[in-house]
Amino acid sequence: MVRRWATESEIYNRIRMSFRFEIEACEGKARAGRLFTPHGEVRTPVFMPVGTVGTVKGVPQDTLEELGVQILLNNTYHLYLRPGVEMVRQLGGVQKFMSWDHPILTDSGGFQVFSLSDLRKVTEEGVAFRSHLDGSSHFFSPESAIAAQIGLGADIIMAFDECTEHPAEYARTKASMEMTLRWAARSKKYFEEHKQEVPWFSRGLKSAEDFNVALNGTAKAVPLQSTRKTSSSAAGEAVPFPNGGQTQTLFGIVQGGMFADLRRESAQRTVELDFPGYAIGGLSVGEPRPMTHEMVEAAIRFLPEDKPRYLMGVGTPEEIVHYVAQGVDMMDCVLPTRAARHGLLFTSEGRIAIKNARYAGDDSPLDPRCGCKVCTRYSRAYLRHLYSSNELLAQVLNTIHNLAYYLDTMRRVRQAITFGEFAKFLAGVPAAHRASQSAPNSFDLGAVES
Amino acid sequence: MVRRWATESEIYNRIRMSFRFEIEACEGKARAGRLFTPHGEVRTPVFMPVGTVGTVKGVPQDTLEELGVQILLNNTYHLYLRPGVEMVRQLGGVQKFMSWDHPILTDSGGFQVFSLSDLRKVTEEGVAFRSHLDGSSHFFSPESAIAAQIGLGADIIMAFDECTEHPAEYARTKASMEMTLRWAARSKKYFEEHKQEVPWFSRGLKSAEDFNVALNGTAKAVPLQSTRKTSSSAAGEAVPFPNGGQTQTLFGIVQGGMFADLRRESAQRTVELDFPGYAIGGLSVGEPRPMTHEMVEAAIRFLPEDKPRYLMGVGTPEEIVHYVAQGVDMMDCVLPTRAARHGLLFTSEGRIAIKNARYAGDDSPLDPRCGCKVCTRYSRAYLRHLYSSNELLAQVLNTIHNLAYYLDTMRRVRQAITFGEFAKFLAGVPAAHRASQSAPNSFDLGAVES
Repeated sequence: MVRRWATESEIYNRIRMSFRFEIEACEGKARAGRLFTPHGEVRTPVFMPVGTVGTVKGVPQDTLEELGVQILLNNTYHLYLRPGVEMVRQLGGVQKFMSWDHPILTDSGGFQVFSLSDLRKVTEEGVAFRSHLDGSSHFFSPESAIAAQIGLGADIIMAFDECTEHPAEYARTKASMEMTLRWAARSKKYFEEHKQEVPWFSRGLKSAEDFNVALNGTAKAVPLQSTRKTSSSAAGEAVPFPNGGQTQTLFGIVQGGMFADLRRESAQRTVELDFPGYAIGGLSVGEPRPMTHEMVEAAIRFLPEDKPRYLMGVGTPEEIVHYVAQGVDMMDCVLPTRAARHGLLFTSEGRIAIKNARYAGDDSPLDPRCGCKVCTRYSRAYLRHLYSSNELLAQVLNTIHNLAYYLDTMRRVRQAITFGEFAKFLAGVPAAHRASQSAPNSFDLGAVES
Repeated sequence: MVRRWATESEIYNRIRMSFRFEIEACEGKARAGRLFTPHGEVRTPVFMPVGTVGTVKGVPQDTLEELGVQILLNNTYHLYLRPGVEMVRQLGGVQKFMSWDHPILTDSGGFQVFSLSDLRKVTEEGVAFRSHLDGSSHFFSPESAIAAQIGLGADIIMAFDECTEHPAEYARTKASMEMTLRWAARSKKYFEEHKQEVPWFSRGLKSAEDFNVALNGTAKAVPLQSTRKTSSSAAGEAVPFPNGGQTQTLFGIVQGGMFADLRRESAQRTVELDFPGYAIGGLSVGEPRPMTHEMVEAAIRFLPEDKPRYLMGVGTPEEIVHYVAQGVDMMDCVLPTRAARHGLLFTSEGRIAIKNARYAGDDSPLDPRCGCKVCTRYSRAYLRHLYSSNELLAQVLNTIHNLAYYLDTMRRVRQAITFGEFAKFLAGVPAAHRASQSAPNSFDLGAVES
């Protein structure tokens, strides 16, 4: 077996391999594709469950795997406060910390700073805020938010942005959008200068090992916690670039409040900064659903077709299908998990408030058309009993079902796009804003599980 | 295939088959054996996790199966109050209600009435009490407690007893013991007269189906909810005795407080009433551990060797091994599950209070010698983070591990007895009372999860 040093172009290719997006099928504006990240592949369109502090509340990681969860969202703000970025970094990054050897995305912390913390003060430099846990003082700048995200080591990280409050006047919204653009540039600059500091180990990082096999003819893991760029190849123990040369991927975020021209300008100028993926932020903050769709439309047409598009913090099961129809590839929302903990369950027969007395003697499955481990084993009567008795298992099982419902919806969406049947599929889904208005749980939710 | 009516002696044999206890190996006073119940087989000695209201808090039933849980304990008092006996009966009994197609034991409700409810008033007739949930008034007599347990439909049920308070004077303890004996006789009488009212369905009741195959040459299930004793065999759809002729099994309970002669008398006179199994109750109520062992010893030598012996409400992992050495076959305790929810974890290296800061950066498994799904996947650092962050998953994972530790202990105990190595095994386990005194969680616990 011949071992040799990588050439410069090989190193360049390796770094490029940190992220790739391939579109496999399109129907109308909807796309089905694949994201390739250092911790694995994600089929899009994808719904990302929220695991705020490194856990989807109440659900063990093996159950998430059984459910077919492909990628999780973790909240930088929460992990920064507890257990702290340095702790997670020393433990090898969020994937290793929570034993989730699959892709993870972290938000920038901006949204939580604005929605959860006290006494925040925003300046051009960044945001001073107090912890919602203990009132301690902290500061996030674009640089420090990216540093935190590099320390946490998610596969996809987000530029630090200001989530403009709703409602907001035009001038205020424009100023906020401009600052987000400046922060995006600073985020990118810091990331480019520091992206090699990601804490991943080669050991246990499947794609990196595969990569080592491809390049060096050996899958021999490098020593733990080694971050050296050079290598003594004497014993074949180490390879250059312990993390396989792979880095995280930084997405930009489009803002612009509820003004279509600002959304357009934000999209265009964020694209000029050139990110490998783009998020649309600052929506689902209390505005009516038709407005959300209008703002998505205003932004998305100016985002490049060959890059993934991530709509942050949405939505109901009907809404996410309609956002896919607008060209969205990635979404996250606390709705399925938070609603589950409040006994609100999504089924093929509509919403169910499981505490309702009508279910007390109902021995039928929660959703007869659902194949999840809750619907195939337990009755509505039992789930109602657990919820009424305030039992832990209610929250566990309800969460598993709601996630199954969301993930199954997205599987069917991907399949429909692949087989050119998405238009037909979409026709069977109520218009998002109507479904939303009639839903018992049509509340706007921040991207945090608390 | 020839179908015919069962003969009287076959029917008699079927009813006897509702419960069987076989001892397979003995070493000293310790025994390894098998219980056969209508919902399956239990290898003894066995530890029964507590699933108070029809759930082991936070743990889905498939995980309990993966853990190797053989039999669960449910609390009659709790299920009686919520969702109510009639509801559970209509839903087919506790096994079907909670989708646990394995053996279940219910306690009599007596202990909870004494420990949880308000304003109880004890008379010869029974106990008047108020619900701890809503203050509503209720009454348990031996008859109504057995009726409740028949309605719930556990495989093994318990005579209604008075759990004598501790400490108690000799005269008071003797009077209480005498009343428990009279209640035991009334419990048995009511059970014998009503045991055919158990709500089981043949469908899904594996052993009953097996039985139908053996007797009638067909496993064809009988119609749901049929409780008819007669049958129209025209379509081959129904067989006599829809529940396979099987009934629940009623155990008697030895009381006698902390007086060896009363324990002896209670044991002897309970045995005279002739139960298929005997429990020792009223221990682990605050007395020192050597006293517990003395009382177990005082009672157990007067219990028949060919019947199972169930020591109620014990104990630590060390204690349960020592009780096995005294000849105990069955135990239950909330300790593993309740301690787990309080972050107290049992490991081969001793007790761990997972909130301790020393574990914050500890990436080693909770117990390196444990093969459970918690120890093989997550680090102490992650478990500490979950607990410190008050995350639901902390309670779920901690409970899974503590149960795994208890169940693994009992598996090793059974194996040791089977291979004649129990004396050696026992020598490696600290004396129960010493282990208990040094344990951070050596508190006495009632048999209820709250």
